[in-house]
Amino acid sequence: MQAPIEPQDEAHLYDRVAAHIAELIARGTLRPGDRIPSVRRLSRQQGVSVATVLQAYLQLENRGLIEARPQSGHYVRARRISALPEPRAARPSSSASRVSVKSLVAKVYRAAREPHIIPFGAACPSPELLPTDKLNRILSAIARGAGGAGVAYDPPPGLPALRRQIARRSVEWGCALSPDDIVTTVGAMEALHLCLRAVARRGDTVALESPAYYGLLQLIESLGIKVIEIPAHPRTGMDLDTLEEMLERHRIKACLAIPNFNNPLGSAMPDEAKERLVAMLARREVPLIEDDIYGDLYFGDVRPRPAKAFDRKGLVMLCSSFSKTMAPGYRVGWTAPGRFHDEIEQLKFAQSIGGATLPQMAIAEFLENGGHDHHLRALRRRLAAQVARMSEAIAEHFPPGTRVSRPAGGFVLWIELPPGTSALAVHERALEHGISVAPGPIFSAKHRFSNYIRVNCGYPFSDLIEHAVGTLGRICAEAAEA
Amino acid sequence: MQAPIEPQDEAHLYDRVAAHIAELIARGTLRPGDRIPSVRRLSRQQGVSVATVLQAYLQLENRGLIEARPQSGHYVRARRISALPEPRAARPSSSASRVSVKSLVAKVYRAAREPHIIPFGAACPSPELLPTDKLNRILSAIARGAGGAGVAYDPPPGLPALRRQIARRSVEWGCALSPDDIVTTVGAMEALHLCLRAVARRGDTVALESPAYYGLLQLIESLGIKVIEIPAHPRTGMDLDTLEEMLERHRIKACLAIPNFNNPLGSAMPDEAKERLVAMLARREVPLIEDDIYGDLYFGDVRPRPAKAFDRKGLVMLCSSFSKTMAPGYRVGWTAPGRFHDEIEQLKFAQSIGGATLPQMAIAEFLENGGHDHHLRALRRRLAAQVARMSEAIAEHFPPGTRVSRPAGGFVLWIELPPGTSALAVHERALEHGISVAPGPIFSAKHRFSNYIRVNCGYPFSDLIEHAVGTLGRICAEAAEA
Repeated sequence: MQAPIEPQDEAHLYDRVAAHIAELIARGTLRPGDRIPSVRRLSRQQGVSVATVLQAYLQLENRGLIEARPQSGHYVRARRISALPEPRAARPSSSASRVSVKSLVAKVYRAAREPHIIPFGAACPSPELLPTDKLNRILSAIARGAGGAGVAYDPPPGLPALRRQIARRSVEWGCALSPDDIVTTVGAMEALHLCLRAVARRGDTVALESPAYYGLLQLIESLGIKVIEIPAHPRTGMDLDTLEEMLERHRIKACLAIPNFNNPLGSAMPDEAKERLVAMLARREVPLIEDDIYGDLYFGDVRPRPAKAFDRKGLVMLCSSFSKTMAPGYRVGWTAPGRFHDEIEQLKFAQSIGGATLPQMAIAEFLENGGHDHHLRALRRRLAAQVARMSEAIAEHFPPGTRVSRPAGGFVLWIELPPGTSALAVHERALEHGISVAPGPIFSAKHRFSNYIRVNCGYPFSDLIEHAVGTLGRICAEAAEA
Repeated sequence: MQAPIEPQDEAHLYDRVAAHIAELIARGTLRPGDRIPSVRRLSRQQGVSVATVLQAYLQLENRGLIEARPQSGHYVRARRISALPEPRAARPSSSASRVSVKSLVAKVYRAAREPHIIPFGAACPSPELLPTDKLNRILSAIARGAGGAGVAYDPPPGLPALRRQIARRSVEWGCALSPDDIVTTVGAMEALHLCLRAVARRGDTVALESPAYYGLLQLIESLGIKVIEIPAHPRTGMDLDTLEEMLERHRIKACLAIPNFNNPLGSAMPDEAKERLVAMLARREVPLIEDDIYGDLYFGDVRPRPAKAFDRKGLVMLCSSFSKTMAPGYRVGWTAPGRFHDEIEQLKFAQSIGGATLPQMAIAEFLENGGHDHHLRALRRRLAAQVARMSEAIAEHFPPGTRVSRPAGGFVLWIELPPGTSALAVHERALEHGISVAPGPIFSAKHRFSNYIRVNCGYPFSDLIEHAVGTLGRICAEAAEA
């Protein structure tokens, strides 16, 4: 509460005071059960009248953010995060499907990038949660002094300084990669694309969690590959019994998974399951393409290991990027593709020669000297608070029968709407209100999850966001009754 | 001759004076027939003795760079650019081949990126010919002020400001593209990759100029596509009669070409030929994937039109980048893929989401306010001088029977060595001397051109370069006799 509120518009001064406290709660500075400053103290501190503070606190009470306790003052209300049950897992399907999501995804994506839209549809943290200014300053300084190195190609395997930093950090995930294990890429998306191209061809079949990140489905579709969708539990991820059964019944060329904080589920596969997954695939010489972009965004105490940590045969192709933790627009990702390393290097050269040199330099410098660990700690705390706050708002505003995931990391919520609710209708109607959401059917080759939506919690909770959740809740209620 | 030469090592002062004059000749500041400063004047200007200047001029005479004319002074010697005949075109082949160049290319490429190697093997202009500092400064300034926009994704079709600049410039090539026609990419390589994926699949056959840029062959190989190699004339490019015959005999899914200043030939397809090419393909609904990255680097008076200028049916997929004229390491390219626009946008999203945002912003700003036309004029003049100087040095140092291309633009020379000379042996042997060259066989799916090499003229001519040409000439002479 350092910055006093500047009185610009007297009439709505209490709105600003309320927004200030709400922001502190959303950021986790004030936590459930914390006493908030007394009316008198805040009045003095902010240089506003007692009446203004009282009105602000009344507004916060009405919004359910704080509660008055007799003789004791105002407190942050306990969160209602577990008020809603979790969504149900998909049912297994035993046949391979062609994928056809691209036109739907394009439509959703185009809508989501309109300016002024409430970005519940993307899976991006707000730039204000990222080390935006610091990174841009680093890039600025590097560009100024780079000379010819700044404009020169950076051919595969990619910038040595960056590969060293990634290798250094991999020790704490139990991987102990060497810089020579790594190839840098244009974000994780190119890494996944290269890995899939290295191990599967048009007409082949791969296994994939369901629901699955639509970008993976689009990628698979673009390569003419078929998928077997393996149901995933919202807490523990891919159902390994089903996977094993499918491995017996089909000629599966690769398996794709996001074991750590799956998008859209937020599920976290336990270590034993990862070990079993890797062993099960290794017995059959089937590569695992692992997407670990959310691995650093754990809400618990420990950075979970990727499945790659259990790889003994060089069959796990680990892919990641700095898009969810630093700068999506820098397009810096990487893969540690095990025994497919040379093939990936050649494919990378043929596909885009190299990544942009200066952004790679900036990311390497930030990893080395930018306070990356400190940044990640703060980011995790804020994302956890935002996910909690959003869950609470959904519990408050969505129709009865709604279920919501309880992610152990990341920043998206997977919401099951009452049976029969059309997620596509919700998507359309929400857009009319300036709100984007990601409808369930784009997360499945078979267009399942017709009554699910994914919601982004990457933006700091605010009145605007709360209002949008209220609107979205009403739209869902109407769609549920339609 | 502004900067006086600092006397650091008196013994070799005349070397430095000679290098200074040689540099002015290489840059085109002094042109053939120009009178060079009198001995007395240079002596005064540079603060060195008359004897030193005399010794320097003697050295330059011995190197064939200048000549003394009695009673008149010293003059830059006329170039011997046409001293060698042009290489011969490939002979037609009537069958489609699988491509297998990737391991050879990887080897050549790995060698070429060793530090301190003389970079005759790459096709890159020296960073000192590019607007390196200016671009880096622009990027630096933009990064400093970019805020969230600098770290945000730039999804397809890519940065509007950049697409506007490209569209604006396309008018002078006779294309008149609209910004909506364009999709930005990670260099031209990604553009070519996306275009090829959009129109051909594994097992399909495409037609390609021969010799062909090895990156195209690698790309085609990585997609499992077969090629029919169409012989190209070193002056006028692809043989259209052969192409027409092949179009009749084979089911060709696309044609790939670099009509303007082909790499490696430097050939320039005449406008009538471009028109015929486009019409011939359009009659059969066969797309043309056109690589125009060298189009701005013409040595003549007029920017040649791409084949796209003759496209009436949206079948020409024009690809280009700023890698050869501005900054390869910024990885900014684009495609105007005609009727395949939406497909390309979707493939681009699935392949790498978007390009790096800040480098695109910097290129757009340079195009708008950076003096791009002025830069291109200077670059063209210098490249023309370097190509001429290199041709001359090759004529001087290479064995009898050598033939060399006479490019009308770009900055590579295609050299036919005496029959029986092994380009691969030359490549190996040159590497031992710290010189990279690109051996002919990587320019053909069938590993033809066994006695051809491609040499980069992207670096300012200097004593070091001249010495390397001398060494390379000896190596070629030895290989020719082996």
